[in-house]
Amino acid sequence: MEHTNTDHTNTGSTSFALLGLGDMGTALARAWLAAGHRPTVWNRTPGRAEALAADGAVIAETAAAAVAGSDLVVVCLLDDASVREVLADADLAGKDLVDLTTGTPGEARARAAWAGERGARFLDGGIMAVPPMIGVEGSGAHVLYSGSRALFEEHRATLAVPAGTVYVGEDPGFAALHDVALLSAMTGMFAGVAHAFALVRDEDVALKDFAPMLAGWLTAMAGYADRIADQLDSGDYTRGVTSNLAMMVRGNATLLRTAEEQRVSPELLTPFMDLMKRRLDDGHPDEGTTGVVDLLAR
Amino acid sequence: MEHTNTDHTNTGSTSFALLGLGDMGTALARAWLAAGHRPTVWNRTPGRAEALAADGAVIAETAAAAVAGSDLVVVCLLDDASVREVLADADLAGKDLVDLTTGTPGEARARAAWAGERGARFLDGGIMAVPPMIGVEGSGAHVLYSGSRALFEEHRATLAVPAGTVYVGEDPGFAALHDVALLSAMTGMFAGVAHAFALVRDEDVALKDFAPMLAGWLTAMAGYADRIADQLDSGDYTRGVTSNLAMMVRGNATLLRTAEEQRVSPELLTPFMDLMKRRLDDGHPDEGTTGVVDLLAR
Ligand SMILES: NC(=O)c1ccc[n+]([C@@H]2O[C@H](COP(=O)([O-])OP(=O)(O)OC[C@H]3O[C@@H](n4cnc5c(N)ncnc54)[C@H](OP(=O)(O)O)[C@@H]3O)[C@@H](O)[C@H]2O)c1
Ligand SMILES: NC(=O)c1ccc[n+]([C@@H]2O[C@H](COP(=O)([O-])OP(=O)(O)OC[C@H]3O[C@@H](n4cnc5c(N)ncnc54)[C@H](OP(=O)(O)O)[C@@H]3O)[C@@H](O)[C@H]2O)c1
Repeated sequence: MEHTNTDHTNTGSTSFALLGLGDMGTALARAWLAAGHRPTVWNRTPGRAEALAADGAVIAETAAAAVAGSDLVVVCLLDDASVREVLADADLAGKDLVDLTTGTPGEARARAAWAGERGARFLDGGIMAVPPMIGVEGSGAHVLYSGSRALFEEHRATLAVPAGTVYVGEDPGFAALHDVALLSAMTGMFAGVAHAFALVRDEDVALKDFAPMLAGWLTAMAGYADRIADQLDSGDYTRGVTSNLAMMVRGNATLLRTAEEQRVSPELLTPFMDLMKRRLDDGHPDEGTTGVVDLLAR
Repeated sequence: MEHTNTDHTNTGSTSFALLGLGDMGTALARAWLAAGHRPTVWNRTPGRAEALAADGAVIAETAAAAVAGSDLVVVCLLDDASVREVLADADLAGKDLVDLTTGTPGEARARAAWAGERGARFLDGGIMAVPPMIGVEGSGAHVLYSGSRALFEEHRATLAVPAGTVYVGEDPGFAALHDVALLSAMTGMFAGVAHAFALVRDEDVALKDFAPMLAGWLTAMAGYADRIADQLDSGDYTRGVTSNLAMMVRGNATLLRTAEEQRVSPELLTPFMDLMKRRLDDGHPDEGTTGVVDLLAR
């Protein structure tokens, strides 16, 4: 039996269930099994549970039965609706429910209230990893948790087996909020990266050299988030600005002319450039881009 | 006299001119002066040159005079039009011209041809730094250079004084191409970061803790550029994919629902999401986001 994560000392003392054996649930199950745990597993389509039995997983016939025999219940299902459906017949009184299903902050808060009404403690988790990273030491895989701190502390050793743990607050919506905020920022970054590759791809540029240059630059510039936080906290959006909006808006024209020269659609960049321009026109030449955060509020 | 950059051994052997003493030109001049150089400086508005005379700069009355007395001519002006204007009356025969003015690849190529017709060697530079980083060891400031490799090699020690040097190719347009590609990717990342802050700002989230979490996540995900390069090079956009388009498009719905809950406009994310959806609908569920690069071509 391989121990894939040194964080964990196998006590085997908690009986726990894992409901949902899709790509992610299966990766979680395999990490726990590899660390010597014997989770009770259940999946709607039975085949995926059976494959884990040989490695020590205990198979439950129904989700309700899996819950009945466990103190800790971890669910990793498609979406929030499937969580409600799967747990509909289960008696949650006195149970600790950990929901690793991706959802919105609102869905997590509602699920927490729902669990509370059924007598369960609730912890929501947002998995910041893809399945191949799960249970792999040093992969950077981590799960953002929010909700019951007591539940988190009590089960931390078990939860830490498949991925690192980061507790972000008692508000059960905070794991999803942080998760979605990070994914949203990544979406923007990937949009910019796609534009960058579109600019250079037809030129005689070695993409395998360009990629690490790009990653290095983005890494250096990601630290700019600290300044935005400081400006939002202070309310002074000019604080520490080294590249101001007037200059950046002028620079945007060069970016757009280059896109035109390279025959690349600017559609991924223009919405942000338009908001920068709007903020500049509102009379804020000495700010950075933090004023755009205001403009996004509805 | 302080040496701010250990890269440089002060030979003082090259006579060189710096035309343009705006914020960036002044920072460059100060770095060279601090390292013991005595550049000949000129600026359209004379006041800014005079301020540097006390530190050893030689003041030229006209741009043409500055060029006449120098082997190496560095220009750092507002835009390409101002470069043409400033050098209109100068005799460039036998000179080495280094253009640190931001522009497009096309502008740099045209300026290189123009310099060639006048008998000068040409090197274009894209400054990846803001003025306070110039001449500061360890600041990460660097300049991307392209064009005459001979010019670059001969003057490398001088050029390395204010910032690190990265040569990206003989094509004089490549410095601008790389510069704009990096800035474009950064624009996308900053758009995503603005959206992320808009999501969390009204919640009880400590922004000063959120910022480094965000920066750490973006840094981890920036390495994804390597995979895009590999996929573009191989033509196989499914290669190494761990999070596929089908899954990401499903995830985008959660991002949009969260934006709605938090009353944040999704306008900075939707253009990229729309292209992901288009590529998915074109029949590529198993790819990552690399297919979007194709869709940006005009
Ligand atoms: N995969 C990733 O890269 C990744 C990364 C971060 C977070 N996550 C999150 O992890 C969760 C699971 O993802 P996954 O990749 O494992 O998805 P998946 O492979 O599509 O698996 C979905 C799971 O949900 C079950 N399910 C769906 N609808 C159900 C219903 N109505 N009743 C009962 N079971 C139902 C499926 O059961 P059947 O087998 O019977 O269909 C399966 O076990 C999602 O919330 C996802 O957002 C995934
Ligand atoms: N500042 C940055 O953060 C930064 C970063 C990277 C790259 N750059 C690039 O560096 C270059 C200079 O930037 P900067 O920040 O120094 O700009 P700046 O402070 O606005 O200075 C502009 C300079 O250009 C001169 N100029 C403008 N039009 C001219 C004309 N028609 N004839 C003669 N001189 C003219 C100005 O002379 P006067 O003093 O007479 O007006 C001044 O010296 C730009 O291409 C910029 O994109 C700047």
